[in-house]
Amino acid sequence: MKKKIKKINAAILIIGNEILSGRTQDKNIIFLTNWLNTKCGISVNEARIIPDIEKTIMKNILILSKKFNYVFTTGGIGPTHDDITADAIAHAFKVGLSVREDAKRLLSTNYSDGESSLNEARLKMATVPDGAVLIDNPISKAPGFFLENVYVMAGVPSIFEVMVESLLPSLVGGTPLLSVSVKFLKPESEIAKKLEILAVDFPDGSIGSYPFNFEGNHGTNVVARYRDKEMLKVVEEKLKKMR
Amino acid sequence: MKKKIKKINAAILIIGNEILSGRTQDKNIIFLTNWLNTKCGISVNEARIIPDIEKTIMKNILILSKKFNYVFTTGGIGPTHDDITADAIAHAFKVGLSVREDAKRLLSTNYSDGESSLNEARLKMATVPDGAVLIDNPISKAPGFFLENVYVMAGVPSIFEVMVESLLPSLVGGTPLLSVSVKFLKPESEIAKKLEILAVDFPDGSIGSYPFNFEGNHGTNVVARYRDKEMLKVVEEKLKKMR
Repeated sequence: MKKKIKKINAAILIIGNEILSGRTQDKNIIFLTNWLNTKCGISVNEARIIPDIEKTIMKNILILSKKFNYVFTTGGIGPTHDDITADAIAHAFKVGLSVREDAKRLLSTNYSDGESSLNEARLKMATVPDGAVLIDNPISKAPGFFLENVYVMAGVPSIFEVMVESLLPSLVGGTPLLSVSVKFLKPESEIAKKLEILAVDFPDGSIGSYPFNFEGNHGTNVVARYRDKEMLKVVEEKLKKMR
Repeated sequence: MKKKIKKINAAILIIGNEILSGRTQDKNIIFLTNWLNTKCGISVNEARIIPDIEKTIMKNILILSKKFNYVFTTGGIGPTHDDITADAIAHAFKVGLSVREDAKRLLSTNYSDGESSLNEARLKMATVPDGAVLIDNPISKAPGFFLENVYVMAGVPSIFEVMVESLLPSLVGGTPLLSVSVKFLKPESEIAKKLEILAVDFPDGSIGSYPFNFEGNHGTNVVARYRDKEMLKVVEEKLKKMR
């Protein structure tokens, strides 16, 4: 009997000139892809990095939210003029945007003077699209939010990571993609034909090969990724026999 | 008199399941964005990471090559069944694909037995779309190539980087985007209003702010990016006066 496999997919949208200018190395994609796959069984099928331009953000949000089960954004939710993600999301989904009392309360706990510290720039961080649900930020308090299937989070990795941790209850997961890695002390080109045949025989997952060089010798790590545990076991055995 | 500013832009397309599965941290985007900007005056306006699926690659190539002056791809040009970038490019541009003698010669220098070592898998690395120009690979010899405005290179960072270095003569550059960074010992939210006014007054570039935390104090690095050197100088002076 064929087991029931549930595929849930996602896209990541990194918003920020600093990643495209080469100033900053993105670290959020690898964290989120690992987290979504292992904790939720959600596969990331695409990631995009785009600049802080409202029309570009809107267009990408609409395309990706239609195409994938979930979209996760990072960046552009701070207090300055280049933080325009909340505006872009509201405009993309054609909803209003306002300072929310619950967001204001959360945010004010970050300042010793409470709500009286919330100047115009800080209030921007409590401005969310109508209908959005807040995402907790235990570090700097300024919340993220989600609206429809789009989850909006901070770009700073330490804050992004704690926001992600709080998402678990709100996500509907699928069957996790499991993987095994088998190391060959041969170059890719010597095992390519056999790998191709194996990939054709077991099409419900993927077999990837990653060459490495160790002390002048060419080797290959072969990674098999399948949702069906028993199928993965069979593929692993076949790979080991090929060595 | 207004100086002549020439804007040339590009997109990066990272092809590989290993980046989307969380197995591998991408390092090519930051290298290439820095290199293109400083060496060629080419701004990267978008980066996408996509899986090893031919239709997905084809679709992205066609979209990005129409939208930007240049497209740079990494990954998927090895000898195995999941290396399908050359096929996807040929099919996207509706041209043929064949083993090329010049690519074969280059590739064979990697093996002590010369061309007789080129089995089916290795010959795959000498298979390029009709009309493509080869990109030199001094490390593992398997060449990259470019066709129209799409530059196809290896995914392994050390090989990718030497391939990139050889591109310089084939690229038409623009006016480089220059940047300065000014450090504020104040949180973003205290300087946000002034930054916004400055960004509105000087719209021909961008002003980004990046918070940091040092020994419990909030600070902000403000990065101004402009193509006009004198304008950048004026913005820098104004930023310094704001501190």
